[in-house]
Amino acid sequence: RINQDRLWQRLMRMAEIGATPAGGSCRVALTEEDRQGRDLFIEWCHTLGCEIRIDRMGNIFAQRPGTDPQRLPIACGSHLDTQPHGGKFDGVYGVLAGVEIFETLNEKNIETAAPLEICVWTNEEGARFAPPMISSGVFGGTYELDYGLSREDADGITLGEALESIGYTGALPCGDHRLGAFIEAHIEQGPILERQEETIGVVTGVQGSRWYRVTFHGQDAHTGSTPMEGRRDALLSAAQTINAVKKIAEGQAPSAVATVGRIDCLPNSHNTIPGEVALTVDMRHASTETLDTMETQLHEAASAAAQQESTEVEIQRIMNTPSVHFDTHCIVAVASAVHQLGYPHRRMLSGAGHDACHVARVAPTSMIFVPCAGGLSHNEAESATPEDLAAGANTLLYALIKLAR
Amino acid sequence: RINQDRLWQRLMRMAEIGATPAGGSCRVALTEEDRQGRDLFIEWCHTLGCEIRIDRMGNIFAQRPGTDPQRLPIACGSHLDTQPHGGKFDGVYGVLAGVEIFETLNEKNIETAAPLEICVWTNEEGARFAPPMISSGVFGGTYELDYGLSREDADGITLGEALESIGYTGALPCGDHRLGAFIEAHIEQGPILERQEETIGVVTGVQGSRWYRVTFHGQDAHTGSTPMEGRRDALLSAAQTINAVKKIAEGQAPSAVATVGRIDCLPNSHNTIPGEVALTVDMRHASTETLDTMETQLHEAASAAAQQESTEVEIQRIMNTPSVHFDTHCIVAVASAVHQLGYPHRRMLSGAGHDACHVARVAPTSMIFVPCAGGLSHNEAESATPEDLAAGANTLLYALIKLAR
Ligand SMILES: NC(=O)NCCC(=O)O
Ligand SMILES: NC(=O)NCCC(=O)O
Repeated sequence: RINQDRLWQRLMRMAEIGATPAGGSCRVALTEEDRQGRDLFIEWCHTLGCEIRIDRMGNIFAQRPGTDPQRLPIACGSHLDTQPHGGKFDGVYGVLAGVEIFETLNEKNIETAAPLEICVWTNEEGARFAPPMISSGVFGGTYELDYGLSREDADGITLGEALESIGYTGALPCGDHRLGAFIEAHIEQGPILERQEETIGVVTGVQGSRWYRVTFHGQDAHTGSTPMEGRRDALLSAAQTINAVKKIAEGQAPSAVATVGRIDCLPNSHNTIPGEVALTVDMRHASTETLDTMETQLHEAASAAAQQESTEVEIQRIMNTPSVHFDTHCIVAVASAVHQLGYPHRRMLSGAGHDACHVARVAPTSMIFVPCAGGLSHNEAESATPEDLAAGANTLLYALIKLAR
Repeated sequence: RINQDRLWQRLMRMAEIGATPAGGSCRVALTEEDRQGRDLFIEWCHTLGCEIRIDRMGNIFAQRPGTDPQRLPIACGSHLDTQPHGGKFDGVYGVLAGVEIFETLNEKNIETAAPLEICVWTNEEGARFAPPMISSGVFGGTYELDYGLSREDADGITLGEALESIGYTGALPCGDHRLGAFIEAHIEQGPILERQEETIGVVTGVQGSRWYRVTFHGQDAHTGSTPMEGRRDALLSAAQTINAVKKIAEGQAPSAVATVGRIDCLPNSHNTIPGEVALTVDMRHASTETLDTMETQLHEAASAAAQQESTEVEIQRIMNTPSVHFDTHCIVAVASAVHQLGYPHRRMLSGAGHDACHVARVAPTSMIFVPCAGGLSHNEAESATPEDLAAGANTLLYALIKLAR
């Protein structure tokens, strides 16, 4: 069994980097804070005797040697970047569970046949560079390297430039490094485990997600002297679309979700009718057919909103991640670990996307979930209990040992 | 009569400062561009032999001496700051019409009994520092000096600091300088004159306007793993309110207007349910009772939107400018000028607020409107014909001479 306190201490130590006044973490991808987080992780891994490799997308691989040099590494890990208003556990937990497992194995002098590895994937959140999970995406062959490196943040800085500026452009070609298996431990980020009073989610797959950018073009005009008739108010079209997006999800109840997370309004001045408004739409469901239906409805709703307000609309699909079914062998390894340990558990789908989705394309993969308070994530108040986090790490430990035997 | 070409040349010369690629002007209050615009104005006035005074709010007064030192100055003018996506005429026209009138009078060696004056009011647009018309507001006694100087922009810079940094904090106590009359010439910023094929608006008053900041507090959460039920999405509350604001204005047809011009969404990330959204509401009508009704409906609509999405709402009224009736004597001076000149005209109310609203509290005041293409303003495409602009300036010239006799 792993050391619950030591895992907790490391989580709290990492959370000091980019700590926010409201108790969360702000370590947005490839910022100075992200660099400090990566440096701390590598320092810990060096102390534990790991070999570090970094690839062209800045993904980090920390390897604990096995006894059989022929075997591919059995990996765990997740990401260290956070949302701008992020919590202490999203991503970090999967990485630091790996560190704790390595320290436990070292203490007990346990060797594995296959090497073990901790992966840290770059820019999982997508808060700075869209799409999210871009670097596991390049690793898994979903995206080309050039596409990944050329993603731009709001200031026009490319991901490649940002990687250089924090000194994390590695030499290893991204995707060349092969994994024998990958098990990602993560907080659930949803309310199911907590509601059901279960400790472990044996994750069998991830629902599909599609992201869109919807832009309405109207006409700037004076708010005081322009009559209501004849306006071309882009924000009114946007507001109607935001409401429609909610209805589209509710029409595919119970499990569909759809959200407008971002809105950018121009010129954003008290007394000017907004001439241009862009919003992002995030739609998710396990079934491709349902996602197709939702997409059609989004196009209809946005066109109707444009017509209603005499604006023009442009709709761009900026991400399309199909639903993923994880590897049976890996799912069984997690399920038998949790049986052995006796934790209350359930098989479940993930609502959120994870690096595991892309890695699953090139290596046998699955995931382990632990509950988080109120199902809350992407929130500074995100929290999880030391006990649940330890249970997840124990499950991961047992599953890794099984796979690395 | 004034020199139409010379007026046009000066307008085009001023428009070079802060020129935008789309043909507009961006000389936001108290920026480097605003400083350059002020410097150019003062240079022109010096050439014409004017004396310059600047008050504590950075308002500029350029005086052409009269023959009777006992008389208070008869003033014209407007503002030189623009919206971020502003046009070439809004405000600037009233100021440069004054410069052209001074040059015409000098050429013809015409003297007036009362001194004539051109006023340039600071931060009329309110795009950088809300509320708009803040400096004419301090001059007219609507606001205290400390209130004016302590307004903050989005970066927390105060108006006083910004004034200092461009070197336009004057010595004259704001409001001490007294005016015998004030006539503000301005583009209409609405479609009425153009539709009616009239050249001059004899402006008898300005409708009242109220500005609000409405903030919804919900809860940041993950877009993928948070079910639709149980969300507290602040952007959904905001969207419902935006639609309601339109309906509130339409319910007071024909003349009421209401607009959401600005929306700020936090954390504004693709995959986080927005936990906090602030928007501004701008409502206008000539009748205080109607504005009261609209305010009540705004409170009801925002509360309903909060309840619907389990968010909390805060509503702040950030500006309340009652409707203004201009001085009869000044209105008559403009009306008889336009009769003498024979331009097609109409008496009308202003839809937009103007510095004249505040000045009217301490000096006899009225306004002159000229048409602008498509009624468009607060838009880079804002435009007006040299002929209409000259007609307005001639009307202003005749009215000023009448008042300064
Ligand atoms: N787990 C997580 O927060 N992933 C970010 C990508 C997504 O939005 O699903
Ligand atoms: N005229 C003008 O654009 N004034 C700004 C204040 C307002 O919004 O009415």
